[in-house]
Amino acid sequence: MNIHEFGFRGTSEIIATTTSKSGKPNAAPIGIISDGNLYARIYTNTQTYANVKTTKKLVANIVDDPLLFVLSAFMELPLEEFRMEDDVPVLKDAKAWVAFECSMEDHPERATVNLRPLRGKIIQRSIQPVNRGFNAVIEATIHATRYLAMKDPKYLRRIEHYEEIVRECGGRREKDAMRKLKEFLK
Amino acid sequence: MNIHEFGFRGTSEIIATTTSKSGKPNAAPIGIISDGNLYARIYTNTQTYANVKTTKKLVANIVDDPLLFVLSAFMELPLEEFRMEDDVPVLKDAKAWVAFECSMEDHPERATVNLRPLRGKIIQRSIQPVNRGFNAVIEATIHATRYLAMKDPKYLRRIEHYEEIVRECGGRREKDAMRKLKEFLK
Repeated sequence: MNIHEFGFRGTSEIIATTTSKSGKPNAAPIGIISDGNLYARIYTNTQTYANVKTTKKLVANIVDDPLLFVLSAFMELPLEEFRMEDDVPVLKDAKAWVAFECSMEDHPERATVNLRPLRGKIIQRSIQPVNRGFNAVIEATIHATRYLAMKDPKYLRRIEHYEEIVRECGGRREKDAMRKLKEFLK
Repeated sequence: MNIHEFGFRGTSEIIATTTSKSGKPNAAPIGIISDGNLYARIYTNTQTYANVKTTKKLVANIVDDPLLFVLSAFMELPLEEFRMEDDVPVLKDAKAWVAFECSMEDHPERATVNLRPLRGKIIQRSIQPVNRGFNAVIEATIHATRYLAMKDPKYLRRIEHYEEIVRECGGRREKDAMRKLKEFLK
């Protein structure tokens, strides 16, 4: 595996899959930072943090389905969305995945999780014209998690802005994902 | 060529290449709308419109280089960025391209250009993790063209917001593209 083939640069928004001590898989969107080193900054009150603390493993799933970003941000993904690759959980719909060994630096609220690539696979390369609707779903998801944590109405106004872009530029997948996001906000 | 392989859905942001009557190539970002039909809405005061009116041809270049979006929005791309595919110009760095035959419906300010696929090619499929910095360059480019046309300072405030995202999440390519965009705004 050549880690450079996976296209990490700046901060890449991926879906992290991990398992709990008892082996239950979890999925949540996180950013992976690539600046010579690879690492993530993970809130310590999350299942991802608890799982990584226990197992020292995290899989980065490269995904192009906007609904998966929304669902994994706000609920537990059903078991049938995962499959095991030896001892690590991978999303069935991932276009590529990389399993990392993790070492932690704990800080208040957010830990720095250093990522050492173990193995990975590219499943499907594709051609993707830029879709502003897709990008707007990602932004709206980030603002929705902030809104649910902090209840500041400024985040709702930003979500409205992105909703308009989804309406104007999204495909069916983006519109479905945005509808679902609005349900989670209720 | 199977047009469905190119991933058009909702509005796809691509770079349109066209030639003038005298054969000079031009490149400019436009949105291609896919809702059963394929079409674009093109401002009648642009070189793209004038060229399509004359030649009835337009090539959609699927591109993942943020700098190409910025440069083609604000200046004439140098000749060495193009190559000819028979009678149509294509961007050398396109990951895929589709040549269309165009029929026009003129409206005030913006024409509807109906697009019938003639031929196309996928050059390089890739794995691309979501990069919010890349997406922010696209949004900033759109707001910058609006600012330059209308001089409304609200667009400058939005560009600042996207600049912050590029600083936080972009890779080198995105940071270079954003720096260039700021130069065009001066």
